[in-house]
Amino acid sequence: MPSANGTTTNNAVQKSGAWGTIPASDVARRTFNPIRDILTRPVRPLASPQCTNELLSLSIGDPTVFGNFKAHPVVAKAVEEAAASYRFNGYPPSVGLAHVREAIASKYTHADAPLTANDVVMTSGCSGAVEMAISVLCDSGKNILLPRPGFCLYNTIAGSHNVEARLYNLVAEKNWEADIDHMESLIDENTGAILINNPSNPCGSNYTKAHLRAILAVCERHRVPLISDEIYADMVFSGQTFTSTAWLTSTVPILTLGGLAKQWLVPGWRVGWILIHDRANAFEHVRHGLVALSTLINGPCALIQAAIPKIFAEVPDTYLPELNRQL
Amino acid sequence: MPSANGTTTNNAVQKSGAWGTIPASDVARRTFNPIRDILTRPVRPLASPQCTNELLSLSIGDPTVFGNFKAHPVVAKAVEEAAASYRFNGYPPSVGLAHVREAIASKYTHADAPLTANDVVMTSGCSGAVEMAISVLCDSGKNILLPRPGFCLYNTIAGSHNVEARLYNLVAEKNWEADIDHMESLIDENTGAILINNPSNPCGSNYTKAHLRAILAVCERHRVPLISDEIYADMVFSGQTFTSTAWLTSTVPILTLGGLAKQWLVPGWRVGWILIHDRANAFEHVRHGLVALSTLINGPCALIQAAIPKIFAEVPDTYLPELNRQL
Repeated sequence: MPSANGTTTNNAVQKSGAWGTIPASDVARRTFNPIRDILTRPVRPLASPQCTNELLSLSIGDPTVFGNFKAHPVVAKAVEEAAASYRFNGYPPSVGLAHVREAIASKYTHADAPLTANDVVMTSGCSGAVEMAISVLCDSGKNILLPRPGFCLYNTIAGSHNVEARLYNLVAEKNWEADIDHMESLIDENTGAILINNPSNPCGSNYTKAHLRAILAVCERHRVPLISDEIYADMVFSGQTFTSTAWLTSTVPILTLGGLAKQWLVPGWRVGWILIHDRANAFEHVRHGLVALSTLINGPCALIQAAIPKIFAEVPDTYLPELNRQL
Repeated sequence: MPSANGTTTNNAVQKSGAWGTIPASDVARRTFNPIRDILTRPVRPLASPQCTNELLSLSIGDPTVFGNFKAHPVVAKAVEEAAASYRFNGYPPSVGLAHVREAIASKYTHADAPLTANDVVMTSGCSGAVEMAISVLCDSGKNILLPRPGFCLYNTIAGSHNVEARLYNLVAEKNWEADIDHMESLIDENTGAILINNPSNPCGSNYTKAHLRAILAVCERHRVPLISDEIYADMVFSGQTFTSTAWLTSTVPILTLGGLAKQWLVPGWRVGWILIHDRANAFEHVRHGLVALSTLINGPCALIQAAIPKIFAEVPDTYLPELNRQL
């Protein structure tokens, strides 16, 4: 290893063959994130040598990269106020600050899918929500159904947990709906969960109520819980409306995943959440399991948590669509 | 489950016995954090009924709880500036922002244990550092040596990963030094790491160079890497000096853990780090493993990361000792 100034120190000369190379754990070796792998490479060598156009790196779903999607001023202001208050420097509860979970529940509650603060577990980004949802539902050696094409972090996390990723096809000709027959054919007694991503990264699709009901019927028939990754909730093309999967069932237990990243344009702030929809009372153990798992790293940054009620209250719903129209 | 307004909805009436109770994963069931369990209980019922004194909850190592250890004004200011800049809203690299890793390496580099930015992996709090260090070094079914008495999160994380916690005794009569013979007797071919915590939570001890060398000699004899949790680095009683374990060896591979939580009085901000000390070139796979594991949740909040160089540069080293003297 080179030292800080790039030279070799006396210590570094002492290469201890005696220590050999310490193996990394199976978990670490199973963990591979292809997006993060691509991100670390420069873009130019990936293009044809004949290509002289400027290249845009589209390797990551970060709305802030090109400067045209800037967070609303209230978002920064809310964090500045939280920092200046000195009230959010201490440890938050591992599942998140109570008044913030209340604000999240109030924002996402629905007549057909009511939520209280107790149904909200805050996570270190929506990645943390995916990680915790897969971890709590899928034991090592089991399997999970994931979309193809889909966000590759699902595969990364499943692989890390030694959970087999079974990929159900999305059908381009049908607005990237899931091939329901294919999805159903992949289920067996070792299936821990079905994961859907709506609106979809990378497809940009926004599922109809009818399609979501067809997916829920698969869950119902096989008694397999659903993970509904809705990090792009409400971000749909004009004329469309977004439906949260949980609004359409009174029985299928669902973990709905979300966060500040996309809609509020701050993916680097690493605050996400899991909404527990469990009107069939099937998730008692899963609920306790999520609380237990939250204690491993004690949740996301308390300052950003504390900013959420103000962000929800004061950033108009029209902000992002208007930014979009201005492009 | 009660609905948001406390009444029972039509949907909730449909209790689906058919779904039964979905089990939580083995990982979730193995994860138990006794501190977080105690935290959720009110203090009064734990006391004797005869006790009429005011009770102080000492259940958690949070310096901010009683208001007498307030973060330096620069700490909040640095975050406010990062938020106002709009430069740190996007995804940071999963191991942390390059210039911040450079600042951390510069702060902790030492003539006998040089560090560069490449030796720094940022984590979601020091808890995240403990989780990642144990995860990368200890496979399921292996064991790790942990201090008794010690910070119970070590046991929680080991248990969650199905790693057996073998507890070496600390000796009260010897300033809570480790019982070296006992420590050594617990090692076998399945030992993935020895973990020490210096200065110690809960003992408050600060190990001498001689004692640290004795621990390093155990690692050397058995070729077991060390995790040195130094989250309380430099927080020692007056007249004492703190020694980082890595300064005392040119061969034993060490993961040194730290963070902003204690010394800068912001445990709720959830930013920690792992310093990779590997002058025997034994950690090549472990280093790659840490990078891989960092991609699971993509590191801590970018805003807080971005505040670190200013915090290091402008908060005087004397701030915390002076606060202490004023009490």
